[in-house]
Amino acid sequence: MNAHTHRNRDLFPRPMDLAGGRVDLTHGGGGRAMAQLISELFAAAFANPYLAQGNDMAVMPPVSGRLVMSTDGYVVSPIFFPGGDIGSLAVHGTINDVAMSGARPLYLSASFILEEGLPLADLKRVVESMADAAKKAGVLIVTGDTKVVERGKADGMFIVTTGVGSLQHDLDIAGSMIRPGDAIIVSGTIGDHGVALLSKRENLEFETTIESDSAPLHGLVRAMIEAEPDIHCLRDPTRGGLAATLNELAQQSGLGMIIDEEAVPIRQAVRGACELLGIDPLGVANEGKLIAFCPSNKAEALVAVMRDQPFGKNAAIIGHAQPDSRRLVWLRTSFGSERVVEWFNGEQLPRIC
Amino acid sequence: MNAHTHRNRDLFPRPMDLAGGRVDLTHGGGGRAMAQLISELFAAAFANPYLAQGNDMAVMPPVSGRLVMSTDGYVVSPIFFPGGDIGSLAVHGTINDVAMSGARPLYLSASFILEEGLPLADLKRVVESMADAAKKAGVLIVTGDTKVVERGKADGMFIVTTGVGSLQHDLDIAGSMIRPGDAIIVSGTIGDHGVALLSKRENLEFETTIESDSAPLHGLVRAMIEAEPDIHCLRDPTRGGLAATLNELAQQSGLGMIIDEEAVPIRQAVRGACELLGIDPLGVANEGKLIAFCPSNKAEALVAVMRDQPFGKNAAIIGHAQPDSRRLVWLRTSFGSERVVEWFNGEQLPRIC
Repeated sequence: MNAHTHRNRDLFPRPMDLAGGRVDLTHGGGGRAMAQLISELFAAAFANPYLAQGNDMAVMPPVSGRLVMSTDGYVVSPIFFPGGDIGSLAVHGTINDVAMSGARPLYLSASFILEEGLPLADLKRVVESMADAAKKAGVLIVTGDTKVVERGKADGMFIVTTGVGSLQHDLDIAGSMIRPGDAIIVSGTIGDHGVALLSKRENLEFETTIESDSAPLHGLVRAMIEAEPDIHCLRDPTRGGLAATLNELAQQSGLGMIIDEEAVPIRQAVRGACELLGIDPLGVANEGKLIAFCPSNKAEALVAVMRDQPFGKNAAIIGHAQPDSRRLVWLRTSFGSERVVEWFNGEQLPRIC
Repeated sequence: MNAHTHRNRDLFPRPMDLAGGRVDLTHGGGGRAMAQLISELFAAAFANPYLAQGNDMAVMPPVSGRLVMSTDGYVVSPIFFPGGDIGSLAVHGTINDVAMSGARPLYLSASFILEEGLPLADLKRVVESMADAAKKAGVLIVTGDTKVVERGKADGMFIVTTGVGSLQHDLDIAGSMIRPGDAIIVSGTIGDHGVALLSKRENLEFETTIESDSAPLHGLVRAMIEAEPDIHCLRDPTRGGLAATLNELAQQSGLGMIIDEEAVPIRQAVRGACELLGIDPLGVANEGKLIAFCPSNKAEALVAVMRDQPFGKNAAIIGHAQPDSRRLVWLRTSFGSERVVEWFNGEQLPRIC
C-alpha cells in the first residue's frame, strides 16, 4: 500500500465519490485509481508514520521479546451486524489471536479483496470502523493491499488481517501446557456473536437486540498475567464456539475436560434465541471472549481480577481439566446427568467470521 | 491454524480424499473437518516447529534489527500458469515486498479463502507449491487460516500472505531517498509474468511458451547491498509494470525520470506477444524483477554484481532520475524522440496477481 497523503490535484483532478461511487477494477490495478483510493481512504483513516512511508512494506523499530504472529481471514456475511462489522471484527479477531499467547499486539496489516460494484460508502464505513477499532486498541495498521475481482467472483468484501506482537515475559501459555486439575474459566457470556449474526441474517426480531460481543481482549489478558502469571493456556472460542475450542484443547493437551452447564454464563436472550433456532449455545461463535486454564487454587483470585476489567465482568469458573486417554469433553447438565460435548465436523453457521 | 500433526484415528477415521474430494463448508467451520485439513495438508506440507505449536498464533524467538512487515492478496486467474501458480506467487510476491526494504524475510503467514467445490487436488497442488517455494527461499510459513465461502461467492481460491523480516543494517532504502541523477537499474527482462498469464488466459499459442518470472529476490538484494550499500531505492514493478512503478516513485520522490527504450531488456517473444495483443510491455506486471536507484557512478559496478546472481543475469541501466516539478516519466524511443510514459488509471490486465 503506497500512501500519497498529499492530495495531488494534477494526478487526481476530482476527489473520489465516496458517497455514491462503486468499486471498479481500476481500484485494484496498481494505477492512479488505486493510488487515489489509498490516499483518500486508507491513508486518511489509518494515518500513522509507518503507513505514511508509502512503500510496499512498513519498517518499524526493533521489537523486544519474542515475536508473535497470527493471521485470520474475515468473510462474515452480512458485513454489517448488531455490535460490529467486518472491519472491527477483523481488527479485534486478530488482536485476540496474538493476545492469547500473552503477547502485546503492536501492528496489523490489512489486505482487502473487493468485489467490483461494492458501494464505496460501504468500504468507507468498514475502513473507518477498522481505524476506530485499531485506535481504541492501541495498535497500528501499518501496511496493506487492495485487490478487486470481477462482479460475482467475491461476495462484497473479504478482509485478511495479520497481527504481530511482542512477548516480553518468559511464560509459556499454550494448549500443551494445560495440566490435570486446571480450572477452566470463561471471561463472560457465550454465544452472543453467533446469535447476533444469525438474527440479522434471518431477519429475526427478539424483544432485545442481541449484539455481537466483538472486542479486543489484550487489556484483559495483560491484567490477568500481571495478577497471576501461572496461567497455562488462553484461547478465544470463535468458530465452533466453546464446544470446538474445548475439544481442540483436549486433543492438544491429551486431557479430558468437564464443564458445569449451570456455571456457563449465557444471556437469557441468547438462550431463548438458541432454543428457537434449535442450536446449541456451546457451539456458537464468540468474538470477545476467552477461556483460561490455571491451577484450581488460583482460579478464584484470577476471576476476581477479570471481573474488574471491562471485557471480563461476567467471568466464571466453568469446570476443570482431568486425565482422560479418550480426551473427551463432558457437560454436567442442570439435571445432574453428564453428556459428551461433541466436536462437530463443521460449524452450525457458515460465514460467522 | 491449529495443527494436530499426529493423525488421530479416533478423530479422523478416514484420511481425506485429497485426490478426488472437494472443499466444502465444513473445511472452514472450526470443527473436526477443518482440523483434519490442517493436519493432513497444511501442517504436513509447511512442517516447521512454529506452526507445530498448534495454537492460533505462532511464537518465534526475538528478531534483531528493525521489523519489516508487508502483506499482499493474490487473486490471480487462472491459478495455474506457465512458470508458477497462485501458491508460489503468494510466497515470492510477499518475500519480495519485504526484501525491497533491504530486509531479510523470515516468516510468512498464509490465509486461504476457498470456494466451496474447489477440488482438494488443486488445493494440495497449490499448498505443496507454496511449501516448495518457501523452502527454497529459506522462509517459514508459521501460521495460517482457512475460510470457505459458498459456491459462487469466490473464484476458486484467494490467498493472502503476510511477511515479516529483519532489517539488520542502518540503510534507508525507500522511494523518498531517490536523488536527482540516480541511475535506474532493472534486474532483467520485463513483461514476462503478465504475458504468460494473458497467453494462458486467452489460450494463445506462441512458438515458445512464455513463462512467468515469479521468483524470490531477497538473495539478489542481499548481494547488492553487500557490494554497494549506497542503494537509494528498490521496488518490484508488479501490477502496472515498469510504467506504474516509475510514476509512483516519481510522485514519492518529487522527481522526474527518463528511461531509454533500447536499454530496457525485453524478450523477443514477449515483445512479439505484446505487439499482437496491442499492449505496452512497460505496463505489464513482473513478479521476479526489481528496479534499483543508486548514484550513477556506482551503477556499473552494481549491475556487474547483479549479473552474477541467478535472478539478475539480464540486469541493465535503463535511465536516471532528474529534477522535474511535474514529476513526469519520459521514454527516449529507439527513433530518438521522447514521449511521456503515462501512469494509467488502472491495469491493462485484471487479476494478474
